[in-house]
Amino acid sequence: MNADPGSTLEAVAARAASAVDMDFLLSAASTLIRIPSWKGEESAAQRAMAALMEGIGLETETWTINLPMVQDHPEASWELDRDEALGVTGTLGNAAGGPSLILNGHVDVVPPGDPELWTYPPFDPVVVDGRLYGRGSLDMKAQLAAGLTALNAIRACRIELAGSVRLQSVVGEEDGGIGTLAAILREGGADGAIVMEPTALTVAPVQAGCVNFRIRVTGQAAHGAVRDEGVSAFEKAFHVFTAIQELEARRNAPHRNDPLFAAYTTPFPISIGTIAGGDWASSVPDHVAMEGRLGVSPDESLSDARNALERTVADAARRDPFLSKHPPVVEWWGGRFLPARTRVTHPLVRALRASISDELGHDAVLKGVTFGADAGLLQHVGETPVVIFGAGDISRAHRPDEFVELDQLESMACALARTIVRFCGAA
Amino acid sequence: MNADPGSTLEAVAARAASAVDMDFLLSAASTLIRIPSWKGEESAAQRAMAALMEGIGLETETWTINLPMVQDHPEASWELDRDEALGVTGTLGNAAGGPSLILNGHVDVVPPGDPELWTYPPFDPVVVDGRLYGRGSLDMKAQLAAGLTALNAIRACRIELAGSVRLQSVVGEEDGGIGTLAAILREGGADGAIVMEPTALTVAPVQAGCVNFRIRVTGQAAHGAVRDEGVSAFEKAFHVFTAIQELEARRNAPHRNDPLFAAYTTPFPISIGTIAGGDWASSVPDHVAMEGRLGVSPDESLSDARNALERTVADAARRDPFLSKHPPVVEWWGGRFLPARTRVTHPLVRALRASISDELGHDAVLKGVTFGADAGLLQHVGETPVVIFGAGDISRAHRPDEFVELDQLESMACALARTIVRFCGAA
Repeated sequence: MNADPGSTLEAVAARAASAVDMDFLLSAASTLIRIPSWKGEESAAQRAMAALMEGIGLETETWTINLPMVQDHPEASWELDRDEALGVTGTLGNAAGGPSLILNGHVDVVPPGDPELWTYPPFDPVVVDGRLYGRGSLDMKAQLAAGLTALNAIRACRIELAGSVRLQSVVGEEDGGIGTLAAILREGGADGAIVMEPTALTVAPVQAGCVNFRIRVTGQAAHGAVRDEGVSAFEKAFHVFTAIQELEARRNAPHRNDPLFAAYTTPFPISIGTIAGGDWASSVPDHVAMEGRLGVSPDESLSDARNALERTVADAARRDPFLSKHPPVVEWWGGRFLPARTRVTHPLVRALRASISDELGHDAVLKGVTFGADAGLLQHVGETPVVIFGAGDISRAHRPDEFVELDQLESMACALARTIVRFCGAA
Repeated sequence: MNADPGSTLEAVAARAASAVDMDFLLSAASTLIRIPSWKGEESAAQRAMAALMEGIGLETETWTINLPMVQDHPEASWELDRDEALGVTGTLGNAAGGPSLILNGHVDVVPPGDPELWTYPPFDPVVVDGRLYGRGSLDMKAQLAAGLTALNAIRACRIELAGSVRLQSVVGEEDGGIGTLAAILREGGADGAIVMEPTALTVAPVQAGCVNFRIRVTGQAAHGAVRDEGVSAFEKAFHVFTAIQELEARRNAPHRNDPLFAAYTTPFPISIGTIAGGDWASSVPDHVAMEGRLGVSPDESLSDARNALERTVADAARRDPFLSKHPPVVEWWGGRFLPARTRVTHPLVRALRASISDELGHDAVLKGVTFGADAGLLQHVGETPVVIFGAGDISRAHRPDEFVELDQLESMACALARTIVRFCGAA
């Protein structure tokens, strides 16, 4: 809207944005939301996405992911407990020409949990008061639909891109990114990528990583009536936990001055999510396990972060007479997410900032995100500069009555259409 | 052995002790151990016990406990999740004559757990190196057999008691004492009672009580990536736990000078036995439950002890901004055990001390016990002065390869035979 009509490319970008069709976006998002698609059950949603891509004339590829091959990759993080995974990519433009851009989004959702907790049914999308409700509306089927809508707008305007855009519809993001890794291994990287996770329209050129851990703490059983004769694994777990809290404070202190993380008190938290220990109320517990999530700074490797936690637990054990003889065990399990960082002066960051600023009528906010997603794989395996950008508030994800705001979806789709033109160029 | 031959009663007591038949004791104990008899499955063991009593000519009563009636009693503590419970009592002597004595023991055992952890099979009793192994050998079928053996010795010597002894074989001790409560309600109390739990032959005129609790602590869920936006129920449970540790120290300090509890650092412990909280490693946990055991001093009531814990949790909550708005909930559940105390100058304590001193050749140790058992019911409902006394080390109870020392069993049976004569008198 603020595009300079004197610039041809700016005018083309504005034209693309003005062709964004919200009815199409809502229809595509609703089609996807209606198909439950949690881990291992994403094929129907992927086929629907492929049909939507074909429907707007994208060059569409659907393929069966070679699971054992992908799992052999050193950056593969998931456990192989699925039978099938499909990859779907739709391409627009001239792959042999100018700059190439990836728009990446996942169709897998987390299960809805207790349906009683939902006001609106999870798989029957509905718009109420300017919000689209349903499982995956926020994380992130509507954003995938917004990417598709941006491509549709460019097609509808008959804009010839100098470069190319690939819309990657992936599976398994919630469990560590098998789909994105498979797509990178098949297609290679690009000159830039946008992971369309919800950022409430802020531009995130930096994303924290994370990795799950489990700490097993041993005690010594005794009857609760003579608890002095035992050693409570619960008390020892608290000793370890206190050391972990101190580590978290030490790890986050140097990031206080990073403007991209200024909004967070603790951008790289170490959060204990579950604790379980003991078998009987009247016994001193001889085992406690704590499971949690270790936030990883974009300026360190996963293995540095892991080493820091392991060293802290070992040091805490050395300071305790019992634990020094029965050291806790740290295990690493489940999905993990690599961190990512792209310089704020990169052409993709500039193009996206300008485009969403045009839509919002004010300067876009630049801000890092602390949640893990597929950006790290695109950067580290695909060697692709990556930005995270999308509609909606991530703190509503994985909850009942998940929703995304329609006005944000529209701004997102328009900003993507502009960004594609600005970054890939028009012939 | 040190009995004064000048005293007729002492001579009779010595004669009774010398008639103790260890083959009979081992045979009876083995018969009972061979019959698995955990909660709700004790009837076969009770019938076997009745047959053993009849076999030595006791006046034996076996009856079906009226469960709903007994459960209505204010001191009933268990949950009604059993179909059947039998009471068995064998009586010797003249119930209308001199002092009456109860010998109380339970046939219920705790389940054996993983059989792989046992060197000797749990239900196939075996003697190795002077120890009888098997589930219930220590807690407390062999002690019940020792009581039976003491009565058999008196019968074998044709001693006519001035008073009477009732051998109570009970069920459900491990879950709060349904069997002992039922026996008291049916038969009333006596002039004295010995609960034959393992005390390693020390004489325990005082026993701590205990009660199970559960503390539910609430937090506020958030994604682990933004853990500052949530409130960890685990951290809040730690806050509550610290207050409980301080309460435990305060509650135990006044008992430092009680000679009967001098051997214990913490005679009335507050032990957390299980902890469970959170659903997902990457979420801030919004619920944690801690289950534990509150030790009750013999000089306080259960309700005083409960109030102290509830007040401590409430005070800790008031000191915390979040918990003051979301106070933890304290629940009381499962079996509970009343504390008991008999003055050390009571005739039964004197008789038992003298008898076991005779057997050991040195002064018996007087010492309180911290585990819960049926003594409190006998004292508070049966209005019967009660002592806890038996062979074996209680710290081996509820474990694989539970065992009891044969020499202790023999000393126990002989001391019981002497005590019966001394306390009930001989005609």
